[in-house]
Amino acid sequence: MNTVVTAPGAVASDSADSFTRPPAWPHRHLLDVDVLTRPQVELVMDTAVAMAEIVARRRPRSDALRGTGVTNLFYEASTRTRVSFEVAARHLSADVVNVSVSGSSIEKGESLLDTMRTLESLGARVLVIRHAVSGAPYLVAREFGGSVVNAGDGRHAHPTQALLDLYTLRRHIPGGSLQGRKVVILGDVLHSRVARSNLWTLTAAGADVWVCGPSTLLRGFEAWAATGAGGDRRFTVTSDVAAALRDADAVMALRLQQERMAAGLLPSLREYAARYGLTRERLRLAHEGCLVLHPGPMNEGVEISPDVASGRRSLIREQVANGVAVRMAVLALVTSAASRADA
Amino acid sequence: MNTVVTAPGAVASDSADSFTRPPAWPHRHLLDVDVLTRPQVELVMDTAVAMAEIVARRRPRSDALRGTGVTNLFYEASTRTRVSFEVAARHLSADVVNVSVSGSSIEKGESLLDTMRTLESLGARVLVIRHAVSGAPYLVAREFGGSVVNAGDGRHAHPTQALLDLYTLRRHIPGGSLQGRKVVILGDVLHSRVARSNLWTLTAAGADVWVCGPSTLLRGFEAWAATGAGGDRRFTVTSDVAAALRDADAVMALRLQQERMAAGLLPSLREYAARYGLTRERLRLAHEGCLVLHPGPMNEGVEISPDVASGRRSLIREQVANGVAVRMAVLALVTSAASRADA
Amino acid sequence: MNTVVTAPGAVASDSADSFTRPPAWPHRHLLDVDVLTRPQVELVMDTAVAMAEIVARRRPRSDALRGTGVTNLFYEASTRTRVSFEVAARHLSADVVNVSVSGSSIEKGESLLDTMRTLESLGARVLVIRHAVSGAPYLVAREFGGSVVNAGDGRHAHPTQALLDLYTLRRHIPGGSLQGRKVVILGDVLHSRVARSNLWTLTAAGADVWVCGPSTLLRGFEAWAATGAGGDRRFTVTSDVAAALRDADAVMALRLQQERMAAGLLPSLREYAARYGLTRERLRLAHEGCLVLHPGPMNEGVEISPDVASGRRSLIREQVANGVAVRMAVLALVTSAASRADA
Repeated sequence: MNTVVTAPGAVASDSADSFTRPPAWPHRHLLDVDVLTRPQVELVMDTAVAMAEIVARRRPRSDALRGTGVTNLFYEASTRTRVSFEVAARHLSADVVNVSVSGSSIEKGESLLDTMRTLESLGARVLVIRHAVSGAPYLVAREFGGSVVNAGDGRHAHPTQALLDLYTLRRHIPGGSLQGRKVVILGDVLHSRVARSNLWTLTAAGADVWVCGPSTLLRGFEAWAATGAGGDRRFTVTSDVAAALRDADAVMALRLQQERMAAGLLPSLREYAARYGLTRERLRLAHEGCLVLHPGPMNEGVEISPDVASGRRSLIREQVANGVAVRMAVLALVTSAASRADA
Repeated sequence: MNTVVTAPGAVASDSADSFTRPPAWPHRHLLDVDVLTRPQVELVMDTAVAMAEIVARRRPRSDALRGTGVTNLFYEASTRTRVSFEVAARHLSADVVNVSVSGSSIEKGESLLDTMRTLESLGARVLVIRHAVSGAPYLVAREFGGSVVNAGDGRHAHPTQALLDLYTLRRHIPGGSLQGRKVVILGDVLHSRVARSNLWTLTAAGADVWVCGPSTLLRGFEAWAATGAGGDRRFTVTSDVAAALRDADAVMALRLQQERMAAGLLPSLREYAARYGLTRERLRLAHEGCLVLHPGPMNEGVEISPDVASGRRSLIREQVANGVAVRMAVLALVTSAASRADA
Repeated sequence: MNTVVTAPGAVASDSADSFTRPPAWPHRHLLDVDVLTRPQVELVMDTAVAMAEIVARRRPRSDALRGTGVTNLFYEASTRTRVSFEVAARHLSADVVNVSVSGSSIEKGESLLDTMRTLESLGARVLVIRHAVSGAPYLVAREFGGSVVNAGDGRHAHPTQALLDLYTLRRHIPGGSLQGRKVVILGDVLHSRVARSNLWTLTAAGADVWVCGPSTLLRGFEAWAATGAGGDRRFTVTSDVAAALRDADAVMALRLQQERMAAGLLPSLREYAARYGLTRERLRLAHEGCLVLHPGPMNEGVEISPDVASGRRSLIREQVANGVAVRMAVLALVTSAASRADA
């Protein structure tokens, strides 16, 4: 008679894995991806899979954050990221409050802290913050009693974007692993927090990362490449689009940050599009099944052509959809760390 | 002994009516009223009656849209219509997200579509859109996977306003039918999406519609009147206020769209008010019980005098209240069509 | 054998207290504190204690306002007060709608009423209103069918702020009573609705209130002090900071309303800070345990130094936290009066 026995040994063999996996999520905040170990990144990915199942339901609702105050504090205009966090928090039954501070009245450091303290006293347990100044979320996290999630700070970091990009790539790359895969980050690297955070997670996942753009939009990256993106993880910096795209498995086009670009870095939008835009012709240099990503919002016809953006290999819409599940995972994980810290 | 018997025949006689009534709502979107058949308009009215009963409850809540993402995407400032849709969607237990795009950054066609795709990927199943460009909701509906509801596009259409006006008129016109009743649309017809949508529904309901205003604000309407508003339905165009108001059963004053009016169409606000403002004196030309409507927001003292706006025959506040029930009906109907299309 | 018996007499002795306490809250609106009797203020305080217990729960939720429409209508930008009312109303399960009218389009009287009527027709039963014009909430309350709560009108009044200040002071002043305690209101008194409302509640609570600031920012207050703040309740007006702070039990620093200050009232911010800023040195003149309050948002380094703002005696964060409970109490009380008026 055959029976299935759950032997103590099963637990033991499972727990072998826990050697490389954290017993619990230790980070009360998510300010950037550079503090995440590989097992921690895996934990985000696994949690996001579970969250995606909730999102797919007819009534997407979990009780995980019921009664928890989540405040979106946005000092830069954003539709995509703000709504994504709002929807993610609502799916977890959190009490969501939106606070937008208009660009014209961007506040100085001290009043950012004053605002944070006020929102904490009003019941915020998670503060999702976007700010034009690099490092602003770190300043806030030093004093906030709950969890701070960085939703993009200046040119510095956009950790949930990098995590959702990784999640999306792994669901579509043949075999599900980025180990040894060539991934190109193309465009206005200099002003891109998305590029910085992705460099970290993609190299950590074993990808062969190429960073490509006009030399004026790559300043400082060659020096960074020489030292490596975290430990000894190397990446390649080039202004040669053909070299970058050749045999690429995935390419991520970046938004040209016209609003952040000081005059003189580019000759013209037209020339930029002609030389660095991701077109169907250029994409032929890459692998046949080369995946296409873009963090949005797009300048279609500038850094990416409309046919590529809506083409068969484009994962752009799926990036947005996956963002909800990944942010649900992040919200659930950081609050689990916060509540353990309380105990 | 008299007894009331519910005979099978009662059902049979009811179902005779279904010959002229659609078995189900076929429109996944509501972009304008011009695609609605008369039975479909009746279905909106009947559904709105049922919704009004929910609104009247101490805790106005139905489960009809629980778990359904409804996003209000407003490219023009609006308090009344945005809050009306927000309240309507909440009463149906939908998950409501508000997105306002400030007038200064009105986006061009492509990025409107990019925004739509993003909101769809973030879970929007209904997109309620207001846009300064006529036709923008049609562009969006061509690609959106869920339901698009037009909350006002340029000078073109405002279908939920026309439906709530019809609903309000029929509840107050003696006998409940507009057949043969004289209804006047008075004022800045040229710039009014409210006038265009109302012309359709009012003539469809059999009303004798008169359109009245200064000739500069009627351009193009005489030609339209000659061809008829949908099939052979005629209406009258005139600049003669006395002729228009004489024996009228209802008059709908339009907001003077100062923000849309190019210089030179009017001599002055004062003269406009003196010649076309709906005053108590002018109203004496109409039937004694003539009903007064206005889509809001009002320029009191310009197109309507304060005493008429708040007078005994004014239905202005009831229009606003009925708007919630009518929009609940529209949200419920379009999503029922969308879910059948999925099946 | 000892038993605990709940005798009818217990009820009788409880009801002895009702002699000085109103049997029910009579005010449908809260426009200012000047109509509140002392027992009514006590009822707010007691209700706020009960609400604070709800706020402290892991899932802070009461059913008190379920199904009740609460609309925040803000004609001035505000994070703190708007979010505080939003959180308070949500904790009571109300249906909250936020309406912000940008400063650039501040509407004139008539359209304020038009907006109010629209929001009422859309289901608002409580209207929380902030407006730059003193008296605007009174205008609205004359016609609104539900409850109006003043969230700050011009220089006139900010009743919920005064109530939360009183609540906060009484929880920390030794013995719990302000009778005979010296409380200083320091700074830009002229432009402060917070000062005006606090003068009323603090003198009513028996405090010895001192109002202190540059003489240009005290205009009119000496005459007011001579007649008394409500009946014969006296307070002291001075520009002598040392005299004001000497032996003070509590000091409330006011925000310097730079945006409201006509040129010429002050020589410079630096000189203002030097002469009237609440610094650690100045605070040494007060009682050792002198409590520090500020209604926020702070200009740190101007009217208050950062070390005082975050010092051991500062109640500033607790003011914000208590604001939620006090506003819950106010919302519950005014709606209880409104529903009795309906009955």
